[in-house]
Amino acid sequence: MAFRSLNQFLKIRDVILNTKRAYFNKVWGMDLHPTSVFSLSARFDTTYPRGVHVGEYSYVAFGAAILTHDMTRGVYLHTRIGKNCFIGARSTILAGVEIGDESIVATGAVVTKNVPPRCIVAGNPAQIIRENIEVGRYGRFANAEATKQRLIAEGAFD
Amino acid sequence: MAFRSLNQFLKIRDVILNTKRAYFNKVWGMDLHPTSVFSLSARFDTTYPRGVHVGEYSYVAFGAAILTHDMTRGVYLHTRIGKNCFIGARSTILAGVEIGDESIVATGAVVTKNVPPRCIVAGNPAQIIRENIEVGRYGRFANAEATKQRLIAEGAFD
Amino acid sequence: MAFRSLNQFLKIRDVILNTKRAYFNKVWGMDLHPTSVFSLSARFDTTYPRGVHVGEYSYVAFGAAILTHDMTRGVYLHTRIGKNCFIGARSTILAGVEIGDESIVATGAVVTKNVPPRCIVAGNPAQIIRENIEVGRYGRFANAEATKQRLIAEGAFD
Repeated sequence: MAFRSLNQFLKIRDVILNTKRAYFNKVWGMDLHPTSVFSLSARFDTTYPRGVHVGEYSYVAFGAAILTHDMTRGVYLHTRIGKNCFIGARSTILAGVEIGDESIVATGAVVTKNVPPRCIVAGNPAQIIRENIEVGRYGRFANAEATKQRLIAEGAFD
Repeated sequence: MAFRSLNQFLKIRDVILNTKRAYFNKVWGMDLHPTSVFSLSARFDTTYPRGVHVGEYSYVAFGAAILTHDMTRGVYLHTRIGKNCFIGARSTILAGVEIGDESIVATGAVVTKNVPPRCIVAGNPAQIIRENIEVGRYGRFANAEATKQRLIAEGAFD
Repeated sequence: MAFRSLNQFLKIRDVILNTKRAYFNKVWGMDLHPTSVFSLSARFDTTYPRGVHVGEYSYVAFGAAILTHDMTRGVYLHTRIGKNCFIGARSTILAGVEIGDESIVATGAVVTKNVPPRCIVAGNPAQIIRENIEVGRYGRFANAEATKQRLIAEGAFD
């Protein structure tokens, strides 16, 4: 696909994202930071929407779910994603969990307890697999953008 | 959201649920007890629908899947959810598994073998993480409704 | 359901499958072998579609996802499913992973590293749970079709 049409597609996606974020925040009372980005297939728990918190420059990937209630215990809890986090595709964050700033939740992880800042957690149940990581916005490693641009220059997408 | 409109929404949902349950039972030949409740996004295996059994006052949460066949072995099996069970969001119950009465399958669990009564299983593959639990209808702990009502009275949803 | 109507349904599904496979290969540039079969709910990563490779007579079951990029590292990788593989329902294959010929990925598995030929992997993270298996097309064991036909003859579907 040509990059021009891809970029137009991305612009349309941004409009949809901003509309959906505003809808979640204003109509449902969630707390999704204006700089946060999420896949349109991500699920935020609407049973207790005010318990959903996503910090600045955090990313919620496709199919991820952020839960804020547990029917078996009758509890409604605040679930907090910090700043600069990456919440991987198809992961599930259980009600009441806090994800520290600059942490990464791996694809498919089921997170049952708090995650300290600057960690990678993976698995079901999720375990810490790496500590003291250094990531920037959207939980990306320092060289991520350079790697991507190099691959584009090398023709990976031509 | 005001509770009046929420309650109206819940009534509409009940009508849809009852219609969908009747459809699964009469058209597909499943065995979903009339008192069982399931999310509209729960998946029941239609490859061998008569193998799907959900007992009275059991709950199947959003995105859960109950399977009854295994293509690699060519088998079509009966998968049974007992009474008063809670089958958590996005969990998967493999073909032929039996979940004992009053047991809870945690969010995201992949259940590969039988679960005794009154247990909580979690993880992938699912393991027993708690035994001898005491739950009532829909796998809820005794104090779940009281906890919920207290949170409502305290204004958690205002 | 009568087998005649089931067979008609299967024919329609084949037409849809062939159309969708051609679309993925021609428009997106994926490499799905003409003999490969996938559920219409399977997900192939469209961020780096040319990295998706599925070999001959392999099967991708419902809700499975085959990923080819990792945003946190900025990488776009080739993910290869061999021949005669079965990729189970709701499993996730991470970017860059290679699944050897005649291997089975169990339901719900999250595959983070290469899988040798003729293995079964399961769990999150996925581990090898069986080696030296012998399967034919679509990762089915030798007696799978015989087992299925016996169950049909015994009236399991009547």
